Amino acid sequence: MEKLDFVFHPRSVAVVGSLRDINSPAVRYLRQFKDFGFGGKLYAVSRKATENIAGVCPCYHNLKEIPESVDYVISCISVSALLELVGDCAAKRVKVMHIYTGRLSETSDPGLQSLEHEIVQRAREAGMRVIGPNCMGVYCPESKMTFRFEFPRESGPVAFLSQSAGNTGHLVSLGVGRGLRFSKIISYGNGADLNESDFLEYLTNDPQTKIIAVYIEGVRDGRRFLNSLTKAATAKPVVVMKGGLLGAGARAAASHTASLAGSQVGWEAALRQAGVIRVESLEEMSDVLLPLMFSAAPRGRKVALLCGGGGDTVSSADQCESAGLEVPPLPQEVREEIEEMASELHSIINNPVDYSAIGDQSTFDKTCELLSSHPNIDVVICDTQVAWRLGFHEGLDRIRSMVDIFTKIGKICDKPLVVVIYLPDCVDAETWTKLVEQQDRCYQAGFPVYHSLERAIRAVARFVDYHEGPFEVKNEDKQASTSIDRGRSERVAAQVGNKRY
Amino acid sequence: MEKLDFVFHPRSVAVVGSLRDINSPAVRYLRQFKDFGFGGKLYAVSRKATENIAGVCPCYHNLKEIPESVDYVISCISVSALLELVGDCAAKRVKVMHIYTGRLSETSDPGLQSLEHEIVQRAREAGMRVIGPNCMGVYCPESKMTFRFEFPRESGPVAFLSQSAGNTGHLVSLGVGRGLRFSKIISYGNGADLNESDFLEYLTNDPQTKIIAVYIEGVRDGRRFLNSLTKAATAKPVVVMKGGLLGAGARAAASHTASLAGSQVGWEAALRQAGVIRVESLEEMSDVLLPLMFSAAPRGRKVALLCGGGGDTVSSADQCESAGLEVPPLPQEVREEIEEMASELHSIINNPVDYSAIGDQSTFDKTCELLSSHPNIDVVICDTQVAWRLGFHEGLDRIRSMVDIFTKIGKICDKPLVVVIYLPDCVDAETWTKLVEQQDRCYQAGFPVYHSLERAIRAVARFVDYHEGPFEVKNEDKQASTSIDRGRSERVAAQVGNKRY
Repeated sequence: MEKLDFVFHPRSVAVVGSLRDINSPAVRYLRQFKDFGFGGKLYAVSRKATENIAGVCPCYHNLKEIPESVDYVISCISVSALLELVGDCAAKRVKVMHIYTGRLSETSDPGLQSLEHEIVQRAREAGMRVIGPNCMGVYCPESKMTFRFEFPRESGPVAFLSQSAGNTGHLVSLGVGRGLRFSKIISYGNGADLNESDFLEYLTNDPQTKIIAVYIEGVRDGRRFLNSLTKAATAKPVVVMKGGLLGAGARAAASHTASLAGSQVGWEAALRQAGVIRVESLEEMSDVLLPLMFSAAPRGRKVALLCGGGGDTVSSADQCESAGLEVPPLPQEVREEIEEMASELHSIINNPVDYSAIGDQSTFDKTCELLSSHPNIDVVICDTQVAWRLGFHEGLDRIRSMVDIFTKIGKICDKPLVVVIYLPDCVDAETWTKLVEQQDRCYQAGFPVYHSLERAIRAVARFVDYHEGPFEVKNEDKQASTSIDRGRSERVAAQVGNKRY
Repeated sequence: MEKLDFVFHPRSVAVVGSLRDINSPAVRYLRQFKDFGFGGKLYAVSRKATENIAGVCPCYHNLKEIPESVDYVISCISVSALLELVGDCAAKRVKVMHIYTGRLSETSDPGLQSLEHEIVQRAREAGMRVIGPNCMGVYCPESKMTFRFEFPRESGPVAFLSQSAGNTGHLVSLGVGRGLRFSKIISYGNGADLNESDFLEYLTNDPQTKIIAVYIEGVRDGRRFLNSLTKAATAKPVVVMKGGLLGAGARAAASHTASLAGSQVGWEAALRQAGVIRVESLEEMSDVLLPLMFSAAPRGRKVALLCGGGGDTVSSADQCESAGLEVPPLPQEVREEIEEMASELHSIINNPVDYSAIGDQSTFDKTCELLSSHPNIDVVICDTQVAWRLGFHEGLDRIRSMVDIFTKIGKICDKPLVVVIYLPDCVDAETWTKLVEQQDRCYQAGFPVYHSLERAIRAVARFVDYHEGPFEVKNEDKQASTSIDRGRSERVAAQVGNKRY
């Protein structure tokens, strides 16, 4: 397992490529490492530059001129100069060469394909590992490596392994405002040397990684990958998005990362058998990662829904049922207690609870407390009903009060609580900022927050499915199928970690 | 058809109810009408008030004290006082009584159910029509009637008929920032007198309404409703969301608007036969309404996709194909022209186009122009790739340039153009505001804009399905099925109106 640890903890990094302008890849890598506070040595290598680049680090004409040792080289040079750089790296006893440079095997040009092959061969002969080509490389906040300025400085429990670089920025953007944090993000592109299975095996044993997310287009060795995936999914939750399943998507995958995407049917069966959580989009991936990161394992699929407005009670109940969640009638004790507080609610309070019928905040608070502590309720989902509230005087205050009660309940509740805060595009920037502040409070208090009730319900359903099992997990040693029930296994939940990240 | 026009054009409105505080329903109705600039007479009626309410309008103790005639009364009083108010309205020869007051038949209390029945009976005897009870009533910007402050002042082509009041605010909020505008919005609640079929028949013939959206939980007279729906769908595009299809949803529908929701299978068949566009959520409803409002009828289902980043090219192609859209290889002439401009793009430019490979703006612009004018492309979808761009210097400028070219193309292109502008929750308010400005430019230039590629693709697929037909439309006179092909019928497209709303 330690064999790839050096990839994520280099003591010195040299970035090779043109320093022409601020958006040049080499300049971006250097500035990003500097910005993040990378603690090791940092060098620029460029044929044309002789001076320090904007005070970031010393600059050399050639890798071999660097007086000290170099662990990690990032190549931002053109394809034609790659073989020479491999030779320089070998001479310098570099350990890892990350080839950002693209337009190799993904072009399907036979000459370029064999060039890629030759690069890997020469690197291996020199005892060097290659990341890429055609990728962004490694983000590891622990060692202050990044390939994007805006990625969070602090670490988290999720590793994201992605054949696509664009998807890494997109997933972070979709999740970071709702508390998603990462141990590592790896964009590995064509995976000519280090591939999906190598990284997956590393992450399976990485103590910093509690949850693994994977975006995959195609794999080099299907049998090895599925074995790795099965082992990973036995150790920790694994969320997989498979791209390139259909005609045009497969064609795009081939020109993106030179991947043979495989058949839809084969992949679906394989992923099901491996026991992973399958998602259809990055949005869904971000949504499913949040409860895996924040929430206690649910004990069942019985959901209490709090919605403001009758239309939402109806459609949210529909959506829960069609996603396989149960919406049981309001427990009798809860109903009785609500009626005691507010007798006018007799016969209209149900599950979903239409809390627009509940006038005062204290009855709402008590209803939330009753539902979140009731043994016949496994998950509580509350929509703060932003669109409706904002039409009323002090609507934002009411939304804040609702987050207050959930923050309070969250501290003592041992079941998943999920909050919906819709962010309209038609409000002014001040209102938007105040809504985002409430969203921040939710994740800081340790519960998942969603922008729509539909997305919340879909994510909860996947989360419950995962814990409720049973799944068929293929035992690779015995070549037999055994069944494990995650619902009854404390192991998986424990490994997902404590609720408060 | 004119029989209900008086509902939307009253010359005088009296709002009856407590004027206690700013969030009291009666105060809200009065202030909203005033704010909107309602041109007719406006009166407040409250037992306790004797003066003008905050300068809004004259106030009377009793409806009968109003010296002039009253066309339209909004009841915000308690259930116990309703029958007396009906008597007063009858004496005053009121034409329409909108009963905002809830907790009648939806409580399933037999006494309250018969009270609701009696109210309707007495109103009918007096020649008066009733909206509701348990609803928000009418928004009609043409006559400056509204039940929400934030609804847009200007009219548009979409009518929304909704059993749920909450859903009206939510749909407007989801669409207004992307250009969705309404002729009428009707929240009709329990529909004890004027019901879904009455309003649907009116909207079918309403010249201000080009597109009809319906949220329905249950209906009073299924046969009449399906006949009305079929007629409506033959005249203009009709988008339907049916709530309460499953166990808990149906239970919620019963306590929301006293609706018997009916069976899932029966409804699905009926809606299919009626030729409506069926949606699963309000988000999807807003998304589908945009191309119906803005875009020319597509000639087919061949989509050109422009995405920045290989991962998105792969998954967007997957999503298109699984939604039934075609993603043909890049037309040969387009490929040749791109290669002439940028020879380095040889063999990596395809459809979807990964425009991150296209360095300069002019090549991107030319690619867009080529695709939008090519006869083998029916729809162009472009993702501005916000998450990725924002990580780069001048990323916002690039997004603006992309909107520039689409604004330019939109003026001459006769096929649907669709743009994706993702609004991250993790940016600062200034960046968010600038992105929203670009979104505004899109709808002002007359094309639909979406917050995610998935949502854009799903909406385009429904839009294309609608135009591509054929649908089975039941002919109610002959009791036989006939088939109409919307793709070849110019009539429907013409009625949806000119592309530039």
